[in-house]
Amino acid sequence: MSRQRTYLDLVNEVDSFPSPTLSPIQHAERTSNLHLFTAGSHTLGYVLPSVVAALQEANEPHWTITPTSISIEGDTVEKRSKNMAATLERWRANGKFQVCSKGWRNELYSVYSPTGVLYLRMERSGTPLFGLVHMTAYVPATETQPLRIWTPRRNITKSTYGGMLDNTVAGGISSGMSVFDTLVKESEEEASLPAELVSKAKAVGVVSYLYVRDSRAGGETGLLQPEVQYVYDLEVGEDVVPAPCDDEVQDFHLMPLDEVKEELAKGSFKPNCAYVLIDFFVRHGIITPANEPNYIEIVSRLHRELEFPLRAE
Amino acid sequence: MSRQRTYLDLVNEVDSFPSPTLSPIQHAERTSNLHLFTAGSHTLGYVLPSVVAALQEANEPHWTITPTSISIEGDTVEKRSKNMAATLERWRANGKFQVCSKGWRNELYSVYSPTGVLYLRMERSGTPLFGLVHMTAYVPATETQPLRIWTPRRNITKSTYGGMLDNTVAGGISSGMSVFDTLVKESEEEASLPAELVSKAKAVGVVSYLYVRDSRAGGETGLLQPEVQYVYDLEVGEDVVPAPCDDEVQDFHLMPLDEVKEELAKGSFKPNCAYVLIDFFVRHGIITPANEPNYIEIVSRLHRELEFPLRAE
Repeated sequence: MSRQRTYLDLVNEVDSFPSPTLSPIQHAERTSNLHLFTAGSHTLGYVLPSVVAALQEANEPHWTITPTSISIEGDTVEKRSKNMAATLERWRANGKFQVCSKGWRNELYSVYSPTGVLYLRMERSGTPLFGLVHMTAYVPATETQPLRIWTPRRNITKSTYGGMLDNTVAGGISSGMSVFDTLVKESEEEASLPAELVSKAKAVGVVSYLYVRDSRAGGETGLLQPEVQYVYDLEVGEDVVPAPCDDEVQDFHLMPLDEVKEELAKGSFKPNCAYVLIDFFVRHGIITPANEPNYIEIVSRLHRELEFPLRAE
Repeated sequence: MSRQRTYLDLVNEVDSFPSPTLSPIQHAERTSNLHLFTAGSHTLGYVLPSVVAALQEANEPHWTITPTSISIEGDTVEKRSKNMAATLERWRANGKFQVCSKGWRNELYSVYSPTGVLYLRMERSGTPLFGLVHMTAYVPATETQPLRIWTPRRNITKSTYGGMLDNTVAGGISSGMSVFDTLVKESEEEASLPAELVSKAKAVGVVSYLYVRDSRAGGETGLLQPEVQYVYDLEVGEDVVPAPCDDEVQDFHLMPLDEVKEELAKGSFKPNCAYVLIDFFVRHGIITPANEPNYIEIVSRLHRELEFPLRAE
């Protein structure tokens, strides 16, 4: 716990799968024993050998399995979604994969084809890719106070990253919800922030990474999780005070910039929330070319090109 | 000229070399006949067959040429820089490459090793990679006026991109100059903006791309130019009026946002300046997930991971 993490360490922890550009040999080695989840000539995600083995064992007619790829049968979104649901429901029932049996969320996520068209909907716990929205609510620096960021602590009872620090608001984009509607809904549910206030939040970009799930994410480790996080900033006055509403968050603290930096270095933040804060620091001139030797690598890694199609509805 | 360009078109025009992630087959095809300019086991840049042929023909003892790579002799920065200068001076004198003979700038640029240590200094016209700094000076939106951006037009007589629209301030980072010192110097030289004002500019990130030089860049076409642009924003009041100082720029115009968008769509901006404006639009909530279908691709492409080491001093 006492090791001080650099910003690049924190990026490496999230964008943890080797880059084909920066580490082509390691990337080739790591992908060589993975199957591709394909749609026609395009890739929707990487599949671990353990998942391919489970599909082969079950021998369901709606999967086509080659030595290098898997694909799902069905000529409509509905048919593909139904086939996927059948497989995941079975895994949920027989406990084959913890991410399905213990991690079931009852939330449908969208998987897109590379042309940006909806390919299928599937239960969140089984999806190979995530679209998320994260918002940073902050009080700008004044003459007497530094910039301060509203920082919640996750409930210690949460199965994933319990007790860690989080972004002001964060949530997954369910199928059929727009990015912005998701932000408004989550802001109300997690932080008691009214829609009228959140409508002033500014879209400021998107960060992306290819994450290798570790034990803190719950369920099997080693699963490959490409994620995009749509990023929003909300500048607020001192009169705005977020408060827990559902059971996601324990409390909110208006954390001065230096304390945010210290908690980042201590590894107190949920990793993909640290990622969003590093992007905030870059955009707000807190991390600069003059004070960060790994500036270029950090900024490009924050925006990893993903080989998997992801888009908002 | 009448074709309307999308933001993704403008990104494609700058980041024009195929991505190993998004277009692995095209990337492999395009790189298969290039030599790598290497330093030990690391790559400093891609070299065209025509350049390798010229090196073979000259048969200088300070180049080692293999079937797939070239490297330069010298165990110190000074020796490598001297060897590189000898080759470039010869090309400048004998007119072998227009980029050297006609494009000579008398500016030394730094080339770094992958560990961020200076590897050699070389004349700007021959360098395989560029570090640049670009600043956008803007007047924020008011109740009666939209956001406006100070936009210069390049002198029609310039050999590269003459007559096109530019960013408020832009310049290359010479060896020995820091990013910020370059910004201050260029702001004074190109836009008559005083150092005291420019010291308030905010570092807001870095954009990167791998550009295939076209005829508008001057000299040989097809050369591969990896570039990073350090990006700064400067919020100004109506009282700040930039003015040409050297002969780079014809005039400055305080351009309303909608006009900037129109000129972008018409292709009036120098391509890598359009790139900086698209990043500005993303960070300022002008391009959003709701209004831009290619949002994720645009934001990740703006921050291409480069296989070549680049860093500020």
